[in-house]
Amino acid sequence: MTSPPTPVSLRAKPGPGRLAVTGIGNALLDLIVRDHDNIHAQLNLTKGAMNLVDLEGAARIYAAMGPTMQVSGGSVANSIAGVASLGGTSGFIGKVGDDEFGKMFAHDLRSLGVDLDLALAVGEEGATGRCHVFVTDDAQRTMATYLGAANQLQVHDIREDLIARSEIIYIEGYLFDLPPAKEAIRRVVETAHEYDALVAVSLSDTFCVERHRRDFLDLVTNDVDVLLANEHEALALFQTETLEEAFRYVDEIGVLAVVTTGPRGASISTVHGVVSIPAADVDDVVDQNGAGDLFASGFLFGLALGADPVEAAQLGTLCAGEVISHLGARPESDLVQMATSAGLL
Amino acid sequence: MTSPPTPVSLRAKPGPGRLAVTGIGNALLDLIVRDHDNIHAQLNLTKGAMNLVDLEGAARIYAAMGPTMQVSGGSVANSIAGVASLGGTSGFIGKVGDDEFGKMFAHDLRSLGVDLDLALAVGEEGATGRCHVFVTDDAQRTMATYLGAANQLQVHDIREDLIARSEIIYIEGYLFDLPPAKEAIRRVVETAHEYDALVAVSLSDTFCVERHRRDFLDLVTNDVDVLLANEHEALALFQTETLEEAFRYVDEIGVLAVVTTGPRGASISTVHGVVSIPAADVDDVVDQNGAGDLFASGFLFGLALGADPVEAAQLGTLCAGEVISHLGARPESDLVQMATSAGLL
Repeated sequence: MTSPPTPVSLRAKPGPGRLAVTGIGNALLDLIVRDHDNIHAQLNLTKGAMNLVDLEGAARIYAAMGPTMQVSGGSVANSIAGVASLGGTSGFIGKVGDDEFGKMFAHDLRSLGVDLDLALAVGEEGATGRCHVFVTDDAQRTMATYLGAANQLQVHDIREDLIARSEIIYIEGYLFDLPPAKEAIRRVVETAHEYDALVAVSLSDTFCVERHRRDFLDLVTNDVDVLLANEHEALALFQTETLEEAFRYVDEIGVLAVVTTGPRGASISTVHGVVSIPAADVDDVVDQNGAGDLFASGFLFGLALGADPVEAAQLGTLCAGEVISHLGARPESDLVQMATSAGLL
Repeated sequence: MTSPPTPVSLRAKPGPGRLAVTGIGNALLDLIVRDHDNIHAQLNLTKGAMNLVDLEGAARIYAAMGPTMQVSGGSVANSIAGVASLGGTSGFIGKVGDDEFGKMFAHDLRSLGVDLDLALAVGEEGATGRCHVFVTDDAQRTMATYLGAANQLQVHDIREDLIARSEIIYIEGYLFDLPPAKEAIRRVVETAHEYDALVAVSLSDTFCVERHRRDFLDLVTNDVDVLLANEHEALALFQTETLEEAFRYVDEIGVLAVVTTGPRGASISTVHGVVSIPAADVDDVVDQNGAGDLFASGFLFGLALGADPVEAAQLGTLCAGEVISHLGARPESDLVQMATSAGLL
């Protein structure tokens, strides 16, 4: 076993024109229902997971849903919205369709002050992607995603500007579901290394890990500085029975890893071993949608500000606590005020 | 002064193929923000009112808004969604654009079981209308509406089928803002009378009443069986200082009138004089958007079921109480269960 992972170098606050975090991921509109009647089960969707569907499947699912609420979404896009809500400069790279949903997606991030590099799908590349979200009474979320234009992100869509200006590049694991994924991700990682940005990656989803385990292991071992995962995803990646065993692999690889553990909070690898950070107190969990995404907002923004990983994880649990107290995966309360009150900003 | 208004005749539950209530109104998508910073004031929007804007104004307003949540809306469409949520058969007549917002609007009503007669705007008639909603911290809502396709409803878009099958036709006052309104409303009223349906009308908005006072007075005096208004709208229509004076005009006209009075509930003209119905107890008023619309759901569905007006108004306040307890103007809880528990269904 090698020595414990080196902690992320302490950094000064991003200077003028610099971005704390730029994300690259799926640009999606969330179509949300409260699923009192477990319609997701009748549709054969795996509960608690993101199920990929084609256009036909999406039409069938949408027809079976009740009236929906629409909010801009996408896992890493949610994280980036959270960074902006924390007062951080941030950027997002993705692809939308040439339609009103795409304009809305862009508006929602832009109005938060996020710098955008959105490629526009043309012709057959399809419409803006969407994610049908079923929120069951136990506050779990089951998703059926039609990727549409988001699925068409190509290596030639990746431009240098936002990456060159960023402290941290945050890559969505779901990107591996794109057919030309490896090439595009390769370009992002190379550019990030060239400009001395940290590379962080989210494992996104257990099934996503299973679909692309070799590619993920290769990326995490060779190119990634920061790994974000939940417990199930971490076990799936390292094929271990316990989180302790998984963290032994993390040590060997020498990556900074943070694993969210639901109501228990998060665990993180540090020079002093694995440290647990408790979850925020939340009176009434309404919708777990976005908990991991917003944890990443606080954690990555904390790192970009030069906080140590444990402090950064505390900022992460604070953000996660806010987003699960209401419907939808984007923050509604004033995160700057909450974090300042808690002494974390 | 003439004799007190005749109470609405008791009716049997609508039979097979019959609809309790069919609404005709604006088909709109609501774009909702929580307006902590009073952005609506910087945009010179009249607080608490519906402000009509053109395409240019809509673009300026949308650009100044933060990230929005989208929910299908439109005042009378909300009422019709509420009737469906109460287990009632219902219909909606309106006009949308040939775009994804229009499909979403149709989906949301159709998935509740609402029978639709949606005309489709072609070419220059425009895109699906939208309403920018600012919810301030005092739970008031300020709206800026771009009518788009909704504004293009023409007399030739009014088909007989839904009206012929309905117990009650519910006309949105905002329709008077359509250029060819009089002709279209005339057709609706004639068809309703022909098929022995009750005609109900909502005054929609104080400014709307001021824009079209003569037309409203003419309609209410000659063609309307049931008048729905809030206190301000009723005073504006009859040009009186007090609700008591307004109800004296109501008596003279011989219409059944129900006036919502915000936190005090509602007042209604009956054979025994004016009766007040208290508002539902609500712990935390989040968003008053939809209170009047959902009151109308309960009230009109109650009438269609043969309830007396006071019972119907109680069903109305129950529905209004549900919708103000969360963001958005369409019900989220199980209204049938709530109404059954309260002994109202």
